[in-house]
Amino acid sequence: MEGERTVRIGELSRRSGVPVPTIKYYVREGLLPAGRLTSPNQARYDDGHERRLRLIRALLDVGGMSLSAIAEVLEAVDDPGQPVHKVLGAATGRIAPAEPEQSDEAGSGTTEARKAVEALLARRGWRVDADSPAGRSLEGVLAAMHRAGHGGLVELIDVYADAAEAVAHADLDHVRRRAAREDLVESVVVGTVLGEAMLSALRRLAHAEASVRAYGGADGAEPGDGA
Amino acid sequence: MEGERTVRIGELSRRSGVPVPTIKYYVREGLLPAGRLTSPNQARYDDGHERRLRLIRALLDVGGMSLSAIAEVLEAVDDPGQPVHKVLGAATGRIAPAEPEQSDEAGSGTTEARKAVEALLARRGWRVDADSPAGRSLEGVLAAMHRAGHGGLVELIDVYADAAEAVAHADLDHVRRRAAREDLVESVVVGTVLGEAMLSALRRLAHAEASVRAYGGADGAEPGDGA
Repeated sequence: MEGERTVRIGELSRRSGVPVPTIKYYVREGLLPAGRLTSPNQARYDDGHERRLRLIRALLDVGGMSLSAIAEVLEAVDDPGQPVHKVLGAATGRIAPAEPEQSDEAGSGTTEARKAVEALLARRGWRVDADSPAGRSLEGVLAAMHRAGHGGLVELIDVYADAAEAVAHADLDHVRRRAAREDLVESVVVGTVLGEAMLSALRRLAHAEASVRAYGGADGAEPGDGA
Repeated sequence: MEGERTVRIGELSRRSGVPVPTIKYYVREGLLPAGRLTSPNQARYDDGHERRLRLIRALLDVGGMSLSAIAEVLEAVDDPGQPVHKVLGAATGRIAPAEPEQSDEAGSGTTEARKAVEALLARRGWRVDADSPAGRSLEGVLAAMHRAGHGGLVELIDVYADAAEAVAHADLDHVRRRAAREDLVESVVVGTVLGEAMLSALRRLAHAEASVRAYGGADGAEPGDGA
């Protein structure tokens, strides 16, 4: 089996869309295993190389991760002693944050924000560390709401958490259909970033619809009444 | 009433946190009405000025809008002939997009993505133009999913739309408690951007919890069984 379907580096480049010099660079940096040498200056690559390249590009382009973060994630992927949820945690924890880090200015309300995050986790029974990247990110958002004089938005947090939970369960069901550990990581990273963008765009569309319904139809049409 | 509680520019700066030269710049650019002259070199500012400054800063800092886009939004805010949903649309349409614009490359699957957006709007009865910024943004995300080889994620779109709708209704209820038209615009802009960040952070937290539940507890704990 192993010897089947191997290709030269040029073909690997065409299939993956990754330029040859970039592939060589990934090999030198240890992100991609070297090809199997069939002669002193001829190496062959298999499906595993193609899949690994696709994962690297997804982490890089979609996840916005640095090469050093990618190296760490790949190490976890390749270590059979690491439980799957640890590997997924290693990957998602290093994806570019949803929101740029908020600077910790004086009077930023961070203590209250931190307490609100901890209270939420306890209330919902979510076994996630408040110090995880997502927990810190939520804390930053709540502090920013306070600073902007819109702390009242925090009242909506459980409606938002319900929505997030429904979406996360659907995401996980979708992802669990993937068998290979490597594909799983790729799915989670792509799903985290692009799913987030999809949810944001849908929320804005739903806002537009709710606004038309509440404040009147476009261009003289009657305000909708829910029909 | 009008003459009451007016302040000098230095006090307006202290209250709003906006530096004096910046306030003067906004007046020159027509974003902020001039103060009322009480002597040839003394102007007084009232609550309306303070509220307007706060709105400009929210659009600028939180909404990531350009000054020229802000000028257009303020024009709509100040025009009593403009219906509220038009003003809100003008504001939210100019907020920095949820996702950077996707470049339209060859084979990007844009046509399919466009059809998927139109089908979604029709299916849900959302009276929103597919060409609106949010519609275009969703189209870009769906095309990116295809390009990344994860077109299957699109199957989740109705679960996401349900979640987005629930959140959008809660947002609108929250916002409708604000009476003044200017405050309404500020609330919507701040709520759109920070609410989006809150939802993204919560989704990542919910992922972490779902992953622990599905793939085993942290550090040797038993996998959860939904209890």
